[in-house]
Amino acid sequence: MRNTKVVSLEEAIRRSGLKDGMTISFHHHFRGGDKVVNLVVAKLAEMGFKNLHLAASSLSDVHAPLIEHIRNGVITKISTSGLRGELANEISHGLMEEPVVFRSHGGRGSAIASGELHIDVAFLGASSCDELGNASGCPRSENAKSICGSLGYALPDARYADHVVILTDDLVAYPNVPKSISACDVESVVVVDSVGDSSKISSGAIRDSKNPRDILLAQQAAKVIINSGYFKDGFSIQTGTGGASLAAVKFIRESMIEKGIKASFALGGITAHMVKLHEEGLIGRLIDVQSFDKVAAESIAHDQLHQEVSSVEYASAEHEGSAVHALDIVILSALEVDVNFNVNVLVGSDGIIRGAIGGHPDTAEDSALSIIVCPLLRGRIPCVVPKVTTLITPGKGVDVVVTEYGIAVNPLRPEIAGRLKAAGLKVVDIHDLAAKATSIIGEPDALPFGDKVVGIVMDRHGKVLDQIRNIVK
Amino acid sequence: MRNTKVVSLEEAIRRSGLKDGMTISFHHHFRGGDKVVNLVVAKLAEMGFKNLHLAASSLSDVHAPLIEHIRNGVITKISTSGLRGELANEISHGLMEEPVVFRSHGGRGSAIASGELHIDVAFLGASSCDELGNASGCPRSENAKSICGSLGYALPDARYADHVVILTDDLVAYPNVPKSISACDVESVVVVDSVGDSSKISSGAIRDSKNPRDILLAQQAAKVIINSGYFKDGFSIQTGTGGASLAAVKFIRESMIEKGIKASFALGGITAHMVKLHEEGLIGRLIDVQSFDKVAAESIAHDQLHQEVSSVEYASAEHEGSAVHALDIVILSALEVDVNFNVNVLVGSDGIIRGAIGGHPDTAEDSALSIIVCPLLRGRIPCVVPKVTTLITPGKGVDVVVTEYGIAVNPLRPEIAGRLKAAGLKVVDIHDLAAKATSIIGEPDALPFGDKVVGIVMDRHGKVLDQIRNIVK
Repeated sequence: MRNTKVVSLEEAIRRSGLKDGMTISFHHHFRGGDKVVNLVVAKLAEMGFKNLHLAASSLSDVHAPLIEHIRNGVITKISTSGLRGELANEISHGLMEEPVVFRSHGGRGSAIASGELHIDVAFLGASSCDELGNASGCPRSENAKSICGSLGYALPDARYADHVVILTDDLVAYPNVPKSISACDVESVVVVDSVGDSSKISSGAIRDSKNPRDILLAQQAAKVIINSGYFKDGFSIQTGTGGASLAAVKFIRESMIEKGIKASFALGGITAHMVKLHEEGLIGRLIDVQSFDKVAAESIAHDQLHQEVSSVEYASAEHEGSAVHALDIVILSALEVDVNFNVNVLVGSDGIIRGAIGGHPDTAEDSALSIIVCPLLRGRIPCVVPKVTTLITPGKGVDVVVTEYGIAVNPLRPEIAGRLKAAGLKVVDIHDLAAKATSIIGEPDALPFGDKVVGIVMDRHGKVLDQIRNIVK
Repeated sequence: MRNTKVVSLEEAIRRSGLKDGMTISFHHHFRGGDKVVNLVVAKLAEMGFKNLHLAASSLSDVHAPLIEHIRNGVITKISTSGLRGELANEISHGLMEEPVVFRSHGGRGSAIASGELHIDVAFLGASSCDELGNASGCPRSENAKSICGSLGYALPDARYADHVVILTDDLVAYPNVPKSISACDVESVVVVDSVGDSSKISSGAIRDSKNPRDILLAQQAAKVIINSGYFKDGFSIQTGTGGASLAAVKFIRESMIEKGIKASFALGGITAHMVKLHEEGLIGRLIDVQSFDKVAAESIAHDQLHQEVSSVEYASAEHEGSAVHALDIVILSALEVDVNFNVNVLVGSDGIIRGAIGGHPDTAEDSALSIIVCPLLRGRIPCVVPKVTTLITPGKGVDVVVTEYGIAVNPLRPEIAGRLKAAGLKVVDIHDLAAKATSIIGEPDALPFGDKVVGIVMDRHGKVLDQIRNIVK
């Protein structure tokens, strides 16, 4: 190789032309195992940068070290899909002067593509990369350390950022084939010890549930799907990673086999469950914006019918070709859903940020049938409420809410209510569910919000949907 | 599918917002079998459009109907890599008021990426496409008609054009996986009877030569490679489609097996010969901007190590990550090479345009070793000349010229001359080759060029390199 883009992190930053006040970006494919954000921001702090805008596809517990960098003025603005852990807690209590901007995955993709979210320098972790910058989330050598599969959330950054730095822990011989990110979009390559802990790409949430309530909810959700009118040969589906969602896949699978129905594709975050159905021939294609476990990451490396897509291709509202436009059924979770079918997946009932928007509003709005699966109560916390603490997914896109106390159908979809009733399912009014929750645990106290706006929720079309205020104590 | 982008060609044109004076683009992956350019331009003429700029990746004999559209003012400007047949003849004689702009494949890619060549509406033929616009040059159904393999030349158009129309003769179920062109870059899909005649993607040039002179030249070229200092494990290579070039691959293959040498990748237009070496394990990866025959097109459909790349990724001078930057050896042909190692592959010695720039200057400049294989004479036409009729590839990028009268090495590369001499090859001065040609056929008459500029040759960096004047009679 006569040319190489391999340099130290410090040199890559210097070459990028990064200046105080600019926007840097990151992906979250390693989820709780991510090592790139903390590494890069520590180096930026060391180099004396200030006033940076950190635009990540999402942030989680592991990014608590950002608190110090916020306090020191290195990071003064954040855009993300989600926040969790101590960072989220501090921000909820007013850590930052500027509110965090929250976008859905599709909304972030659209915003990057349109230039609304302009990225000056993207720092993108890759599981393999060659010296010219062809990068992938798949293993390509016996030295492979950190495997994440799809790099879907990083692809808009790679395409639209002014300057792209790939960080990798496996520098492989040119040419790294097949590539996810093209060397032509990359300026520098930095070799590091580790870009992420692969064991953490499947977070705690992605586990088969043995919780009887989850299994009950899953059975109900599966019945909703099977009787919805959308369960027919060639249908498409996206499921989340919650226990009920995964359990529902098992029930749907049985019915698919029994009725001889096959799905054209499964979309979104892909799990081992979906890979299994695909390999059994029950799902034709896997359209993968994020590999949710090791099995999915290995499948995408070898199976041509398991397609990596960018967040734009996955869920952009502004691109009619994005996959959500072809999605029939989505199963989603919720922290809260209210009597207008509005959903909150970001802010806890204590007013503290503890989640991520993800593809929730994207898939809810564009799918033919969106099903929210949530218990009526989580401990002493009601999940069906008069009004969501924070609006994330507007109710007009939410069709069915499945709880252990019955199934509520959005009045905008009377035909679905009719089909479910005809199938003998217990269809209830969502107001009755909210009343039931209140009758069990009583009227909750108003949350002690302050006056400071700590978060702004953008809808997937680029408009402000809601704001999050600081929580006092 | 709730959404569809499938419309008639006329409706697609209407929706595109195309206006007189705008730029339309096409790819040439079907080479002499292309049916898209003529179909679309006939429709544009019928709809009354005038004064359009046709920016094709290349044009050939089959595009003679454009002559009428030029006469009628529908097309008033052309940008292309090459011109052949009656269209080229007419243009050489002064058909157009505005000169044709010629660019290399890498140069076109760079110009599109930088915005220098702005495409308003791209009309891109695809072998398969779904209703949302995910398109591929590979077959995806039993109805597949027109297969071209890589869509490399179309990818910059898809990414950077304001509006993209896919024409396909095989509309397949969503999602068309794997895709070459993303639905998110596509506005309309038009179903047509045929986008191209696959049997013509391998033009006459791509055939094993039985011509003894070709075989002699091939043997010499292979010896140059083997003794150049670049023939070692992990080397990379690009070959053209001429008989000598293909025959050279056979000799190189034998030497690779004998010496236990393997290539890391083969680049460029990929032929069955390269696929064979790849499948034998002699070439690790195939980096394919254009599938030159049916075997290559089928290979890219199924083999993950056979990678499609855009013309930017293939050969852009402005992108350090383009593959030519990693290319060791290229074998190229020439219509003429002069005593300063300048090469002409575009204009015949009669002054009439009859070729294409292709990736010639891109690979010559960026490869470590570029070898021109050409006979001293073709019939009564000298190929080694005092000065090329038209400058396409500047001599500083041309290292070795192989003729049946000896091998000339660019004085800029004395180390290569030394190695070839040490290996017992007949190294000669290129002035002696030109003198030899003149001594055999005499001093040719000056060409009867007129005053009108009919073509402008851009170099791969975006600067004017030469101009072509009209030929009189």
